[in-house]
Amino acid sequence: MEKYALGVDIGGTTVKLGLFLADGTLCEKWEIPTRTEDQGCHILPDVAASIRAALERRGIAPAQAAGIGIGVPGPVDGQNTVFKCVNLGWGVLNVKEEMNRLLPEIPRVRAANDANAAALGELWKGGGMGYHSAVMVTLGTGVGGGVALDGQIVAGAHGGAGEIGHMTVEPLETVPCSCGKRGCLEQYASANGIVRMGRQMLADCAAPSALRQIEPLTARDICDQARAGDGMALRILDRCAGYLGRALSYVSCVIDPDVFVIGGGMSRAGDILLSAMKAYHKKYAFHVSADTPMTLARLGNDAGICGCARMVLR
Amino acid sequence: MEKYALGVDIGGTTVKLGLFLADGTLCEKWEIPTRTEDQGCHILPDVAASIRAALERRGIAPAQAAGIGIGVPGPVDGQNTVFKCVNLGWGVLNVKEEMNRLLPEIPRVRAANDANAAALGELWKGGGMGYHSAVMVTLGTGVGGGVALDGQIVAGAHGGAGEIGHMTVEPLETVPCSCGKRGCLEQYASANGIVRMGRQMLADCAAPSALRQIEPLTARDICDQARAGDGMALRILDRCAGYLGRALSYVSCVIDPDVFVIGGGMSRAGDILLSAMKAYHKKYAFHVSADTPMTLARLGNDAGICGCARMVLR
Repeated sequence: MEKYALGVDIGGTTVKLGLFLADGTLCEKWEIPTRTEDQGCHILPDVAASIRAALERRGIAPAQAAGIGIGVPGPVDGQNTVFKCVNLGWGVLNVKEEMNRLLPEIPRVRAANDANAAALGELWKGGGMGYHSAVMVTLGTGVGGGVALDGQIVAGAHGGAGEIGHMTVEPLETVPCSCGKRGCLEQYASANGIVRMGRQMLADCAAPSALRQIEPLTARDICDQARAGDGMALRILDRCAGYLGRALSYVSCVIDPDVFVIGGGMSRAGDILLSAMKAYHKKYAFHVSADTPMTLARLGNDAGICGCARMVLR
Repeated sequence: MEKYALGVDIGGTTVKLGLFLADGTLCEKWEIPTRTEDQGCHILPDVAASIRAALERRGIAPAQAAGIGIGVPGPVDGQNTVFKCVNLGWGVLNVKEEMNRLLPEIPRVRAANDANAAALGELWKGGGMGYHSAVMVTLGTGVGGGVALDGQIVAGAHGGAGEIGHMTVEPLETVPCSCGKRGCLEQYASANGIVRMGRQMLADCAAPSALRQIEPLTARDICDQARAGDGMALRILDRCAGYLGRALSYVSCVIDPDVFVIGGGMSRAGDILLSAMKAYHKKYAFHVSADTPMTLARLGNDAGICGCARMVLR
């Protein structure tokens, strides 16, 4: 009987692995370093060896594992093909075929973008639990996004589903985003983005603010000062929430999810950010989805391994 | 054996009905008037009677029908519940339960928003044929949208999926949309919207244009004059294409469909509009989906009955 599932979340520096029971219970989690040298050709062999060792240590036969779900930091299509994964050194690679070669005893392998996997994890066991569909937004160094509908990840024809951070919310922006476009959500709503936007807003006015004394300014400082009532910090956070609420209203107009799950370091701003995002979403969304709930992510760094394990469970 | 499927597209003035073979062949299509009086309480009984008569006329036993798919001009959730359908006089109504009462011999009934049904129809037999996922945009009096993924309609948690016409593409707009919000795509890219925007652009400049002599100005005039090379008409169409291309780039960032299918009267502008939309989509979309194809709808008014029939086929 298929009693177990493996979730593997490959990041640029470490690979997180989790052994789950079919009901979602996490039996064990561990990490191995991501060896990105030699075009990342050691990464999947390391993963396979680590899984094999973990199963042996616990006396689990490979036939007892439903499969291996793998999350990677880049676009993945519905056929488990990674197109380009700069952080891992990968070009085009079919993750399933490679894993099947390395670990033929566990034939069921699925790969997905890590943010999409995290969305599925939060839908299964986290902030989206009990709902049918969730869109997750991760406000970290960048803005990641993931879409899970009816217990399945939406990958997209070119692995581009859930790329909410690269919606062009400010078409007249002149500063380029890391992706090469101009005016992406990520340029205003990521940890880096809010600092850049905040500095600009501070430079453009003379209003007093505790932020003017802080060097180097961080997203956490802006969140902390907003909570402390600093007017400029509140204005910066409100503008960030405006972009986010509008971007999520576009998501509602496309797939109208049951719930938005907000994660990442910036989500620590908590209620100030969340309530402003909800207000802006309501302002811009079509009336039927105006009140779609927004919850905070609950799984933290485990969202990825959870969602990856969920992918291979029937 | 389930050899047939029925597609029913309920509009504000007529109900279109189609009898299909399971392979998609249209055996017969016909129309009945939509009786919207008495809160639209005659509509579904009329549909049931018309289906019963058609099957009897052809000597088809109800058990030979896989089911009845029904499209309605309003939001419908995944449980076949219509929330409000102003054009039909309906409030909250579960279409499946009502049809099951009226025509218990054909228990499989599914309801969907008409634009979503049309998207599925085009994916099955029209401009999206051969693809896995399609987003359809109908540029008519308003701007309708529909989402079909893996042969299924995406309805949305509140029936709001595919409401692309109500994406807020111009947050600073002061003129209200029919939905009550301001700055919806529909205000610039529908037949009415492009005329309103065109008049404004003509009033704001002194450039000569054949459009200045036309009264009343219609969307068709703008398309015709653009094809004839009129500079102002081209600028109006380009601005319309800019809004459309940007809105579709948001769609790509959410679900990254295989193909966009463009229908409705405005799509008659053809290549001028389509090629400009593609260029703007490419400018604003995340790189992986920059070149998502856009095709013209092929089923015309039959898209709805086709998609409705497809919904109930296994």
